[in-house]
Amino acid sequence: MSLIVQKFGGSSVADAESIKRVAKRIVETRKAGNEVVVAVSAMGDTTDELLDLAHQVTPIPAPRELDMLLTAGERISMALLAMSIRSMGHDARSFTGSQAGMITDARHGQARIVDVTPVRVRDALDEGAIAIVAGFQGFNRGTGDITTLGRGGSDTTAVALAAALHADVCEIYTDVDGIFTADPRVVPRAQKIDRISSEEMLELAANGAKVLYIRAVEYARRHGVTLHVRSSFNNNEGTIVYNPTEENSESPVEEPLIAGVATDLSEAKITVVGVPDIPGKAAQIFNIVAKTGANIDMIVQNVSAAATGLTDISFTLPKSDGQTVLTALTAEQTDVGFRGLQYDDQIGKLALVGAGMRTNAGVSAKLFTALYEAGINIEMISTSEIRISVVTRADTVNDALRVVHTAFGLDADDEAVVHGGTGR
Amino acid sequence: MSLIVQKFGGSSVADAESIKRVAKRIVETRKAGNEVVVAVSAMGDTTDELLDLAHQVTPIPAPRELDMLLTAGERISMALLAMSIRSMGHDARSFTGSQAGMITDARHGQARIVDVTPVRVRDALDEGAIAIVAGFQGFNRGTGDITTLGRGGSDTTAVALAAALHADVCEIYTDVDGIFTADPRVVPRAQKIDRISSEEMLELAANGAKVLYIRAVEYARRHGVTLHVRSSFNNNEGTIVYNPTEENSESPVEEPLIAGVATDLSEAKITVVGVPDIPGKAAQIFNIVAKTGANIDMIVQNVSAAATGLTDISFTLPKSDGQTVLTALTAEQTDVGFRGLQYDDQIGKLALVGAGMRTNAGVSAKLFTALYEAGINIEMISTSEIRISVVTRADTVNDALRVVHTAFGLDADDEAVVHGGTGR
Repeated sequence: MSLIVQKFGGSSVADAESIKRVAKRIVETRKAGNEVVVAVSAMGDTTDELLDLAHQVTPIPAPRELDMLLTAGERISMALLAMSIRSMGHDARSFTGSQAGMITDARHGQARIVDVTPVRVRDALDEGAIAIVAGFQGFNRGTGDITTLGRGGSDTTAVALAAALHADVCEIYTDVDGIFTADPRVVPRAQKIDRISSEEMLELAANGAKVLYIRAVEYARRHGVTLHVRSSFNNNEGTIVYNPTEENSESPVEEPLIAGVATDLSEAKITVVGVPDIPGKAAQIFNIVAKTGANIDMIVQNVSAAATGLTDISFTLPKSDGQTVLTALTAEQTDVGFRGLQYDDQIGKLALVGAGMRTNAGVSAKLFTALYEAGINIEMISTSEIRISVVTRADTVNDALRVVHTAFGLDADDEAVVHGGTGR
Repeated sequence: MSLIVQKFGGSSVADAESIKRVAKRIVETRKAGNEVVVAVSAMGDTTDELLDLAHQVTPIPAPRELDMLLTAGERISMALLAMSIRSMGHDARSFTGSQAGMITDARHGQARIVDVTPVRVRDALDEGAIAIVAGFQGFNRGTGDITTLGRGGSDTTAVALAAALHADVCEIYTDVDGIFTADPRVVPRAQKIDRISSEEMLELAANGAKVLYIRAVEYARRHGVTLHVRSSFNNNEGTIVYNPTEENSESPVEEPLIAGVATDLSEAKITVVGVPDIPGKAAQIFNIVAKTGANIDMIVQNVSAAATGLTDISFTLPKSDGQTVLTALTAEQTDVGFRGLQYDDQIGKLALVGAGMRTNAGVSAKLFTALYEAGINIEMISTSEIRISVVTRADTVNDALRVVHTAFGLDADDEAVVHGGTGR
């Protein structure tokens, strides 16, 4: 008997009909002889509606109370899902984050999981029941208060339960067929990826692939959880996100050169102009940035112009953090001794990801050539062991995506079928 | 410093504006130097909307899951209320039934309170915060599951907290000014009652007065909690429901003859015709009725007609229980040996309540005379120490109410202002 954790997002349980459809799918999994644990998000727009209510009451809701409010959302969807399954003749029990043992720290709105003790979930399974767990929510032992996990929280709930219960697989249901070699809305000939390693998935998620949240992938990787990203609208196999290990004979002997290409239009670039080229200046600058809590992505330092003794340092960060960081740096300008700041929010980022890069030279040359031949200018370059990222003008990044996808032979014979976005 | 428990029903917190208004009222009570605990119902029609969703999913929702679903309602209202109070610069914390220590048995949908351990509520008060508690909900220790208290549950939550915290008063906010000598929609000259004993209130509530639930009044009486029923739309004094004790010097030396008159159109009458007039037959009949779970109200047995050795037994019960009881009795007709059953759901009940009746003869004579002079026929009579109830035709009960109200000198000089109904 396998233990399967299934995660359904808000768009999969948007109304009573969708809930019955999902219930049927869960029952089919149970009938096939599996133990089933489900993590479910709030119905459709419930979370946004609750947020809207909160803002009608006060512009800055107290974080503890906001968590109390928002967790009502999954309470509704999970209870409806459980009663729907029961009406189909199968035992099902819903559990809040607290009842399911999702123990977190006390950071309301963005709590981190510190322990998972799903005793009641395990008991329910042992008694033959299907366990329905509220996604997105947790419980702090110190304060006794309800917490929420932040963006992508339901994915994280599912993966954390899968890890704690030693599930055979964690199925993430979404409204697309799986992970694609590129966004099918931009690249119609993008192909569904059958298998991808968790480290490649991590790079794709970190570089703009929206289907999985990076945090959930990280958790799965750290705890050895196999993910299966698939559509809730059909029974097709989706994408398996596996964790290659020495014992894992299932991982392919030769990994494909390129897993996929991701793009991201959510970042901006800050250039610190005229930084004195003496030791410690970069550290000083990034300490200032770190204090703002901003997430820095790429960092590039140009070679110092010998004549002036000055250098430029550029980095990218989420546009939403831009103003805060500019303000913080400006306040310390005299102390650091740089000449000025440039801010550019018209950039696009393209990341080519593939574990095969490790053992295969020439990938970056091929990438740069493809972009050059398409007349696309590269403004920044950054690489990791299994990724090459480039920054271009925002309005050229979709063209860049298409030419790179073609250049690396990723195009399918047919065009993919495209649906909408995903839930939280 | 006084400790005040305030209960706000669903109509008082129907939208963001109402919630802010209620928050302001709570803050005023706090500013006046009181400790404040609030029990709050779900917003407006939330409970009905959630019930509707459940019935879209399945005609007979599993009770455990229905409780999980419905308790999302107070979670939303209490979080919004707490954040609204905090935005006004006062500390406030919301607590679920479970967090507030409302321990119940495991009867989902109609749980009984078995213990109240409001440790976190007390801690919040000690730290200067206002505690907002979800009405209607509890927690069963044995199963670890969420329960609901059934109809009038939020009133019961408020009273139970008041008892456990030794509150000075439990204020029940509603959309009328208090308890009236009769329903002001029927008797425009009905007067607001300033003070009423809990036993009189119990009789009024049991006989059709809708403002307070009998269960909450019972709880208040048993635990010595003083209630203050008042309007959430103004600052007028409402009605104090007090518990007369030997030490209670505040209770009036001479109680008024009549506290109020209640009417009830929700009952039906069953007559068991031709019952053998031998010992044990009444017991046999009411054992059959008891097994159905129906709540019997009035019982009348006619004098046996000596010639036949047969008697008739009539009783009233909620219309909703009528069919079940008829079916149960019919099944046992041969065994009991009665001749037939009559069912009448066109009855109305009028109850005259007053502790002064104990020491004052002539009340029933005055009542019967007033009804006779108005041409209203009495079909059944039942009395307790402080109440006389009569059954009439349903379409005469409002006329009966008006003439009785006048006959006992209860009419005010002016007409009362009438609002709508009340929340759960």
